[in-house]
Amino acid sequence: MKPIQLSRWGCICLIICSISSMAQFRDPRPVKPPPNIIVFLVDDMGWEDTSVPFWDQLTDRNKRFRTPNMERLAREGVKFTNAYATPVCTPSRVSMITGMNAAHHGVTNWTSPRKDINADAPDPALDTAPWNWNGFSPVQGVPHTVYATPLPALLKTAGYYTIHAGKAHWGAMGTPGANPYNMGFLVNIAGHAAGHPQSYLSEENYGNMPGKATPQAVPDLEEYYGTGTFLTEALTREALKALDEPVRRKQPFYLYLAHYAVHVPLQADKKYIQHYQDMGLDEAEARYASLIEGMDASLGEVMDYLAARKIADNTIIMFMSDNGGLSLVPPRGGTPHTQNLPLRAGKGSVYEGGIREPMLVKWPGVTKAGSTVAQYIMIEDFFPTILEMAGIQLYEAVQTVDGKSFVPLLKNPGQTDSLRTLIWHYPNKWIAEGGPGINYRSALRQGRWKLVYDQQQGYTELYDLVADIGEKQNLSGVYPKKVSALLSLLSEQLQHWNAPMPVLKASGKPLPWPGK
Amino acid sequence: MKPIQLSRWGCICLIICSISSMAQFRDPRPVKPPPNIIVFLVDDMGWEDTSVPFWDQLTDRNKRFRTPNMERLAREGVKFTNAYATPVCTPSRVSMITGMNAAHHGVTNWTSPRKDINADAPDPALDTAPWNWNGFSPVQGVPHTVYATPLPALLKTAGYYTIHAGKAHWGAMGTPGANPYNMGFLVNIAGHAAGHPQSYLSEENYGNMPGKATPQAVPDLEEYYGTGTFLTEALTREALKALDEPVRRKQPFYLYLAHYAVHVPLQADKKYIQHYQDMGLDEAEARYASLIEGMDASLGEVMDYLAARKIADNTIIMFMSDNGGLSLVPPRGGTPHTQNLPLRAGKGSVYEGGIREPMLVKWPGVTKAGSTVAQYIMIEDFFPTILEMAGIQLYEAVQTVDGKSFVPLLKNPGQTDSLRTLIWHYPNKWIAEGGPGINYRSALRQGRWKLVYDQQQGYTELYDLVADIGEKQNLSGVYPKKVSALLSLLSEQLQHWNAPMPVLKASGKPLPWPGK
Repeated sequence: MKPIQLSRWGCICLIICSISSMAQFRDPRPVKPPPNIIVFLVDDMGWEDTSVPFWDQLTDRNKRFRTPNMERLAREGVKFTNAYATPVCTPSRVSMITGMNAAHHGVTNWTSPRKDINADAPDPALDTAPWNWNGFSPVQGVPHTVYATPLPALLKTAGYYTIHAGKAHWGAMGTPGANPYNMGFLVNIAGHAAGHPQSYLSEENYGNMPGKATPQAVPDLEEYYGTGTFLTEALTREALKALDEPVRRKQPFYLYLAHYAVHVPLQADKKYIQHYQDMGLDEAEARYASLIEGMDASLGEVMDYLAARKIADNTIIMFMSDNGGLSLVPPRGGTPHTQNLPLRAGKGSVYEGGIREPMLVKWPGVTKAGSTVAQYIMIEDFFPTILEMAGIQLYEAVQTVDGKSFVPLLKNPGQTDSLRTLIWHYPNKWIAEGGPGINYRSALRQGRWKLVYDQQQGYTELYDLVADIGEKQNLSGVYPKKVSALLSLLSEQLQHWNAPMPVLKASGKPLPWPGK
Repeated sequence: MKPIQLSRWGCICLIICSISSMAQFRDPRPVKPPPNIIVFLVDDMGWEDTSVPFWDQLTDRNKRFRTPNMERLAREGVKFTNAYATPVCTPSRVSMITGMNAAHHGVTNWTSPRKDINADAPDPALDTAPWNWNGFSPVQGVPHTVYATPLPALLKTAGYYTIHAGKAHWGAMGTPGANPYNMGFLVNIAGHAAGHPQSYLSEENYGNMPGKATPQAVPDLEEYYGTGTFLTEALTREALKALDEPVRRKQPFYLYLAHYAVHVPLQADKKYIQHYQDMGLDEAEARYASLIEGMDASLGEVMDYLAARKIADNTIIMFMSDNGGLSLVPPRGGTPHTQNLPLRAGKGSVYEGGIREPMLVKWPGVTKAGSTVAQYIMIEDFFPTILEMAGIQLYEAVQTVDGKSFVPLLKNPGQTDSLRTLIWHYPNKWIAEGGPGINYRSALRQGRWKLVYDQQQGYTELYDLVADIGEKQNLSGVYPKKVSALLSLLSEQLQHWNAPMPVLKASGKPLPWPGK
């Protein structure tokens, strides 16, 4: 399978080269030490769930949230205003760790912690698409998984000290993908097969209450049981504790601090909730905002740690979320699917509310403080970007990488490429009741244009995101040739990747490719 | 508090010296690389639960068990025929990680995984001794813990790559002692506050069954859920996976592989049980034997790994158990307290069945293949021994170390010291029903003599272990001066350590020191 040309920047061509170790990182006299890299990943955080505006104006949501440390990071680094992930978590996380688009790796929906359990909701007319419901596997031959070389393993081989803290959720129990140690992490703190915490509360042992634990009970944090330490803070402390070792050794590190926050259950972080209750927010929204502020405090602690250890100047921080903000009510408060306005819908949807992310990058000596990148990028881009940041040019990976490095954008934030094509593919039923842009959808962005495709109905929508970020005006009747061109691009790429498609029960055959 | 002279070898005098790192371990051209060190610790394994005889004759128990890899290690290394631990697990584990005698560190009984829960059984006449029921703490100021510098932290500081796999059980949930990362381990696999596994079976997710999990559910092994992998094997695989990293980097490592086996629950390891059923053993004893053989297979896998990686020549292996074999029925089969015959009693007792351990050490280039050490040693001796093996002469530790290095014995196995004094102190009620040498006992060994002291009754027993390993003949009436001398030694040392003593409810005062 050959990669196809997706943009003028060209595809990522992997140079396959067998190296077992890049020993220069252990040389006591490197010319320039490789940078430390921190990926600070938040779960289910919407584009506007921060006091940092990622649009051209401050929205009501921006005014609600207090994220002073994100503001600090934005001031010191680059803000990406068109950063994307997939509509739900596992596809995004697998894309980040493999560099592959979700339509390509086939882990198109969230994965159950339990093996061989397809998390799709049942549908009267459609059978499940043959997606990889056991998730990602770093080992070949595991049924219903995508086999690929994980990013941390490449970093470890190159001499990085690799630390996982928080949510993993790459693969199911009973498969190698359940275990962060199999991803190339040297340290694992609290990462496992589950996609959310049973509890954020130390008073509930993060879920590990005898007789009450579910697969979502958070492992490895017994030290904090009953101490009043909120999960976000416990993870931060453990992550920083683990960082002491590479810092002491002056070994470059990769820290993947993937917070469970701000995923449900929406539990109050007592340190922060009072302010939001005082604002008059309903209880659910106040709790949500307290989760956001606790997450932001964690970012601040990380930045303070780097400053105190005098390693901030050689440490890259990347802030990202894995999908759009949840817009289901309950558990959120307010009117369903309004939580990300002006963006349409939320988590689970291919509309902007489900996929657009707050993203910040600070690379001391490379990024210009307070700059902005408007070029759209996608979560699989982190894979080649991080390898480029680490100076790893030759590596061995079994997969063809779809992402492209955004290092050029960090160096030249004004650069644009309106021909680049981003693709979303969600051949799954996320929730029984459906919703805007939710279930059995694909989408494509090229330049200002966004095409949304309903796999079941064969229906297309076209939006001009520059003029209409809220995707209110379907222009498909106005620009039929554009629709046809974009639909053809989408269809070809999905076919190229042999993307999973839902199966029509009546015929036993997959739904047709878009436009067919 | 000054250490007192316990033997002609002298006390361990710590030279306190602040060093942050011994950088030579990262020098690419060391004159002689420091050895890798593996502690292979088994839980609740009795002295004779192996086909390797640790007595001067093969016993019926030796004939029952199949441990070909222990035989292999014994052939290649040194066998210690008088190695001791404490009567139960936590005291031994705290002694090993701190170098302190249990009467000194005060963690004299096993610790509950739950904070502030005293595991002592209630007694009508005695209140609890002020022992450290929250276990060991690497952080100062935690109530009911002993604060000390843990061995792995010293090894890590000296450049060792430190790996914990298996049972930790140093401290309670909600305290720093619950977390192996706080002990100086860089990697933690499945170690937490609990002292035994809820289940050895992957079919039961090692206890992590939704709604059924207890604090003993084993963390971190989700990869193996439902795969048919017995706990012992899963831990071995993960430990060896973690070893790949220091091996690749040529960094010296310390692997603490502390199996949950062969502690209860006595579940069958299906790979091995058939043979023992065919022998006609009752079901409980057959299951126990299968746990032993599975543990031995793990030892073999470790040895094979070292050979395959060509590092066996620079890797020390130390095999040890943490207390005597369990002799309660049920869960064991047969007649109570006969499981360790000719040794008297079993786990929980200060008689030999509760404290005498199978111990093997192989240090390539140092130990002579197939040799035997008859000198008695104690589990706290591992602390200074391991530091000496690692070449660490200067280190910073807050505690006064009671153990003494057995490196001289490895170099000269015929060396003896019949004046060395070993002390056991168990001011706790382990089980309500009591048993031989169980509950509220202290003991002392010097040369061939063993003094047993009943704290509650003030009663003393004297045994000649050379003539009477089964402690059948109480010679206290025959050698009253010897009793008096040993009792005085015991009493002075317990007072020196300010050892916890049970409190008489009637008076509210501690029981008197021995001999008072």
